[in-house]
Amino acid sequence: MTRLVAIDWGTSSLRGALLDAGGKVLEERSDARGILKVPQGGFPAVFEALFGDWMRLDGARCLISGMAGSKQGWVEAPYCACPAGRVEAGRSIIDIDVRPGSRISIVPGLRDEHDGVPDVMRGEEVQIFGAMALMDVDEGVFVLPGTHNKWVTVKKGRVTGFRTFMTGEFYALLSRHSILARTLDADAPLDEAAFVQGVTRADNGQGLLHNAFGARTLALFERMPTQELASYLSGLLIGEELRTQSLHAFGEVVLIGSPALTQRYTLALSATGIATRTLGAEATWAGLHALSGFLEADRNPP
Amino acid sequence: MTRLVAIDWGTSSLRGALLDAGGKVLEERSDARGILKVPQGGFPAVFEALFGDWMRLDGARCLISGMAGSKQGWVEAPYCACPAGRVEAGRSIIDIDVRPGSRISIVPGLRDEHDGVPDVMRGEEVQIFGAMALMDVDEGVFVLPGTHNKWVTVKKGRVTGFRTFMTGEFYALLSRHSILARTLDADAPLDEAAFVQGVTRADNGQGLLHNAFGARTLALFERMPTQELASYLSGLLIGEELRTQSLHAFGEVVLIGSPALTQRYTLALSATGIATRTLGAEATWAGLHALSGFLEADRNPP
Repeated sequence: MTRLVAIDWGTSSLRGALLDAGGKVLEERSDARGILKVPQGGFPAVFEALFGDWMRLDGARCLISGMAGSKQGWVEAPYCACPAGRVEAGRSIIDIDVRPGSRISIVPGLRDEHDGVPDVMRGEEVQIFGAMALMDVDEGVFVLPGTHNKWVTVKKGRVTGFRTFMTGEFYALLSRHSILARTLDADAPLDEAAFVQGVTRADNGQGLLHNAFGARTLALFERMPTQELASYLSGLLIGEELRTQSLHAFGEVVLIGSPALTQRYTLALSATGIATRTLGAEATWAGLHALSGFLEADRNPP
Repeated sequence: MTRLVAIDWGTSSLRGALLDAGGKVLEERSDARGILKVPQGGFPAVFEALFGDWMRLDGARCLISGMAGSKQGWVEAPYCACPAGRVEAGRSIIDIDVRPGSRISIVPGLRDEHDGVPDVMRGEEVQIFGAMALMDVDEGVFVLPGTHNKWVTVKKGRVTGFRTFMTGEFYALLSRHSILARTLDADAPLDEAAFVQGVTRADNGQGLLHNAFGARTLALFERMPTQELASYLSGLLIGEELRTQSLHAFGEVVLIGSPALTQRYTLALSATGIATRTLGAEATWAGLHALSGFLEADRNPP
C-alpha cells in the first residue's frame, strides 16, 4: 500500500485525508454528507464522487471509521467488546464489497457495559489509537467532546471501559428548544467567567434538572446579561459531566476534538486542578494509519 | 361576596370554577387559551367570553392565579419573597382595572433564592394554601409535578423555600426531539416495572447525561422493548429529581397535580419508602377560596 484514503464518516458530516505510506497527510477534504444525508444504497456513489480520484492512485486502499459502520451506515461492522485495543479492532475490520478488489474497509466500533446497560462508540476508538501513537503513551483518560461525549479509560494500550454523556445534545435541545431559548443566545461567544460559574454551580448537589432552571431565573431577574447565559448553561452541563468523574484520580486528561469544544473542557478541568493535553483531527489520521498497517499484515498476506 | 370566579390561568391552558360563598364548586370550565395563546391586549375579551356570564351574577368577584400574573400575562403581580403564607400573598393581591368596579384581582407568585440564583412559582402557592386548608395541616413537603416541577417546604403555614426542576420539559425534549425519539414511543402507556428500573438507575452516581444515553443503547441491543423505553426515561428523570432530596427526612410527601403525573411520583417515592397523599384541582379552588376571604376582609372594608 502506498496511499491510504482515511475517512471519518460521521452522522452529520465526514472528513477524509490522503495519507502516504508513512502516515503523512497529503491532502484533506470534508463534506456535509454524513450518513443521515446519504439515501439508501447511495454510499458507493457518494464515495466515488468524493474520493474516486484518490482511489485510482496506484496502490491506494481505503479505511473508514465512524457511523458509516453502523446499522444506518454503509455496511454494519459489529462492535468489539472492551477491553479492546488496536489489535482487536484491526482484526475486526470488515471489507466493503462494492466490486471485487474494491479495497475499501471499515473499522468496527467498541462496546462496553455497566450493570446491564450497554454503551457504544464508533470512530472515537480510532482517535484514541491515534493519540496514543502520536503521544507515545499506552494508558490514560481520554475525553472526546461532541454531541455524545465519551470518557474513556485506557490501560496497556487497550480501551478498558468508557461512558457516553449526551452533553452536546442536551446543550442543543436546551439552548434552542426549551424555555431557556427565549432569553439566551445560543450563538453568543464563550464568556469564560460565566462558563466557570456554571461549572462550579453544577457541583451544588441539586442536579441538572434544577440548576438548568437557574439559567431562566437569572435572566428573569436580570442577574446575568443575556450574552452570558449560553456560556453559563454550557458550564452547567460540562460541570454536571465532571461531577460524576473521580477527577482526583487523574494525573492528566487527554482531550481530542475541535478547538471550540476542547477549549471548554480545558477551562472546566483546570478550574478543578486537572491538567490537559489536546489533539484534533491529526489523531483520526494517525489512528487510521496505525490500523491500516495491521490491515496489510493480517488481511492481505503475500 | 356571594360568588367567586376562581381561575388558574397557566401558560398553555386555563381552568375556572364558580364557587359559592362557602367555597363549594358549582361549575367548572377549562380552555386551551393559555397566556401564550392570548394576543396582546386580548385578555379582557377572552375573559369576557369565558367567564362574563359568571361575573354578571349578583355579588360575583374574580380571583386569578398562575402565569396570567407574569410579565407575559394580563397584569404583572410582583413576586412575594419567601417565607410567605396566605397572609403575605393575600396582601399582595393586585386589582385588574379593566373598568371601574371590574372586581377582577390577581394573586402574586412567590420567589425564593439559593446562593444568588432566584427561583419562582406562580399558581402552585395557591394549590399549597388550598391543600393545607383541605388537609388541615400547616407544615410539610409538597411536590407539584408539571413542566416545571416544584418541591416546596412549608412550616407554620408559610412556604419557607422551594426549588424548581425542569423534569417535565426535559422529558418532552428528550422523548420527542433527541436521538432517543427514534426508538421510544412517547405516548406509550406507563410500564411500572420499567419506570421503577429507571428510578433506581438514576441513583447510580453517573448522572442524567450518561444515564439518558442508556435509553438509546438498551433499544439498540434489544435489551428493553420499545414500548417500555418511555417509562424507563420518565423513571430516570424523576429518579434524578429524587436523588437531590433528603428523602429520609420526610415523613410524608403531599402530591398536587394531575393523576397521570402524581401516579408516577407515588410509584417513585414508594420505591424509596416514602408515603404520599395526593390532591388534584380541588386544591386550586380551595386555595383561591381561602385567599378570597382575605381579599374581602382587607381590601373592601365596609
